Amino acid sequence: MEKYIKLTGEQFILVLNLGSSSLKFAIYHHKTMHRQWSGVIIGIGKSIGSMEVTDSHQYSALPKTEHYRNIEDAGTAIIHWLKKIKKYSLISAIGYRIVQGGADHRIPEIVSEKLLADLNALIFLAPNHLPGELSLINTFLLEFPDLKHVVCFDTNFHKDMPDHNKYYPLPAKYKDNGLIRYGFHGLSYEYIMHKLHQQHAFIDQKKIIIAHLGNGSSMAAVTFGKGFDTTMGISPMGGLVMSTRCGDLDPGAILFMLKQNDITPEELDVKLSYESGLIAIAGTGDMKELLNLSGDNQQAEAAIKLYCCQAKKFIAALAASIGGLDILIFTGGIGENSPEIRERICGEMDFMGLKIDRCLNLRKEKVISDQNSRVSVRVMATNEECMIAMHTKNILAPVVDDEPTYSSLSIAEKL
Amino acid sequence: MEKYIKLTGEQFILVLNLGSSSLKFAIYHHKTMHRQWSGVIIGIGKSIGSMEVTDSHQYSALPKTEHYRNIEDAGTAIIHWLKKIKKYSLISAIGYRIVQGGADHRIPEIVSEKLLADLNALIFLAPNHLPGELSLINTFLLEFPDLKHVVCFDTNFHKDMPDHNKYYPLPAKYKDNGLIRYGFHGLSYEYIMHKLHQQHAFIDQKKIIIAHLGNGSSMAAVTFGKGFDTTMGISPMGGLVMSTRCGDLDPGAILFMLKQNDITPEELDVKLSYESGLIAIAGTGDMKELLNLSGDNQQAEAAIKLYCCQAKKFIAALAASIGGLDILIFTGGIGENSPEIRERICGEMDFMGLKIDRCLNLRKEKVISDQNSRVSVRVMATNEECMIAMHTKNILAPVVDDEPTYSSLSIAEKL
Repeated sequence: MEKYIKLTGEQFILVLNLGSSSLKFAIYHHKTMHRQWSGVIIGIGKSIGSMEVTDSHQYSALPKTEHYRNIEDAGTAIIHWLKKIKKYSLISAIGYRIVQGGADHRIPEIVSEKLLADLNALIFLAPNHLPGELSLINTFLLEFPDLKHVVCFDTNFHKDMPDHNKYYPLPAKYKDNGLIRYGFHGLSYEYIMHKLHQQHAFIDQKKIIIAHLGNGSSMAAVTFGKGFDTTMGISPMGGLVMSTRCGDLDPGAILFMLKQNDITPEELDVKLSYESGLIAIAGTGDMKELLNLSGDNQQAEAAIKLYCCQAKKFIAALAASIGGLDILIFTGGIGENSPEIRERICGEMDFMGLKIDRCLNLRKEKVISDQNSRVSVRVMATNEECMIAMHTKNILAPVVDDEPTYSSLSIAEKL
Repeated sequence: MEKYIKLTGEQFILVLNLGSSSLKFAIYHHKTMHRQWSGVIIGIGKSIGSMEVTDSHQYSALPKTEHYRNIEDAGTAIIHWLKKIKKYSLISAIGYRIVQGGADHRIPEIVSEKLLADLNALIFLAPNHLPGELSLINTFLLEFPDLKHVVCFDTNFHKDMPDHNKYYPLPAKYKDNGLIRYGFHGLSYEYIMHKLHQQHAFIDQKKIIIAHLGNGSSMAAVTFGKGFDTTMGISPMGGLVMSTRCGDLDPGAILFMLKQNDITPEELDVKLSYESGLIAIAGTGDMKELLNLSGDNQQAEAAIKLYCCQAKKFIAALAASIGGLDILIFTGGIGENSPEIRERICGEMDFMGLKIDRCLNLRKEKVISDQNSRVSVRVMATNEECMIAMHTKNILAPVVDDEPTYSSLSIAEKL
């Protein structure tokens, strides 16, 4: 029998989004889907970390500096904060972003013992992300044993990719063990597609590339409203060069490193994930810092150049994959906030009908393409937390209440 | 003091081109650069091999079936053949194709003890190719100790790539040890560029992609007449998916395989080089066979689809790398001989101004682009042996003779 959730008075969905360098969180009103608070903890595991929260009126409390030894500490800090703002007892469900659930776990799911066992058995697929995410779930399961905990996978968006984009040309036994192209940043892509659907009719007839550019960067090519191709493969290390990750490589490069006989595959994983990419070229992987340095600093300039050249190449490659391009979306920390990077990426791309208007781009307009550009180029803010809240609400629906219902998305969108 | 070579009567350059699956050879008249004979030995190391030779009138002797245990056996068979056709004592120099000479050896060089020591020390850079190539040189050095032996590197064409295409975003110590993007198939690219220069004025002002598609496949992007970008990196395993090689991968895929703990990096090298790519999907890596099978066989169809989709993506990516595309050249065994593969690759590429004419393509014309295509698409036969012969002649020049000299290239071209 379907379980109904009785909402009595104010109830909130807590969203936890553990990224590669931070723990974002937010609470959404369960019924209206208004975001009430959002926050972020940075510096987990470092000597100094901090927590910052913003309320629905965009009022930010001063960041609180603290030492977070690990993810449990960060989770505990959020629990304390919930008590402080008197929302602790009003949390109705908790939604989590999870990097990867293998081939069998893609769509949002309610946490069960079986699911946790499955995810624990899949740590080998995402050794740099899953352990932290599982530890976060455990922290909140212990604290809120009676709530529903919902996991949302970053791989869901890409589940319908055709075989030639989903499978590697490698001996079959590896595929049977889970070595396929999963793709990531799916919650961000889902959110962008939802927004596009709201804003435009016939969006499913468009050929779209979404460039999610941040510390982790990837792109997705979308046709008929579905993910058709993407840059990341089995791990968030693939595709584009990133802040501290190397992106796709000639396999000979990895064998070269391993044959030096001074490193295990596990140690190499750390090197390729945290000591490669832009930081290996310029000493920092922070794009803001690189842009500030680039005038005088050749290494910073080289890092930016590589990043933008690779982005160009992947945009063109994905366009070839879907046979053309109607809309290019920039999103993510870099994609949303750096006109300079957007300009560099879109320069000399008129061979494929893509040209941006320098002024529109600098003025941070939503549509930045030149009026003669065949491709519409846009900047959109992504919101993975909103997507997680919506999935969490939807999986627990139908909600019993007497008030008029709204499309949860359309309200959340206004935030 | 410069050494002059005195050519007395008929003298010939022997060219040896050891590929991944065959040993091609040819003899060129030293002065006129006419090709007198060419041949190929296949099945080296297999239970049955064969040797086939063709004279300058395109008359082929029946293939001779024999067992070639190793490369020395194949070399010895060529030496016997030279004696049989009475050219043994007329060989004036020997030119070899060499995959890789590290960062320090790119331009053609006369073999010396120092060079051989250097190449031996570089085997770790090309473990699947250099040992065989060195063993071939040794076989002929022993047989012809008084001749000049000239090595021509496949990496020469790519030596001027800009830094962002030459270096990997990996910790610096690896670059210092030789881990950079070398690129391969350079002798083929040099030959195509020479031909283009002969046929067209202002070729250096064109943006060109050369797609060398064969058992090994790669592409080069050319601007100002020089290699600017290419698909292979440190090894001939990178870039496009190939007959038995996997092409570029998310590094996570390789770490996944290694973490199964049942394979060493050396064994994985063999798996990625000889058991991956098309053969891993369809059981054969032979494109002719795949095309024959593809009607009824889903795996063969999947392999062809992956190959063509990747080719599309790399063409688009390289065009983005050089900011546009004027000329696309198909060459290599598949590129020259398969209208079907060319058609599949060029389909749905009009978003970047590339469209072929189906009839011209089927009729095997030299120019196969549609009249409305912004990109000129052409099919050209490559000839690495000719390029090696020219390099060998040029490095030993000036030749002392009394007869009028010709541009060695223009004559060789006619063959």
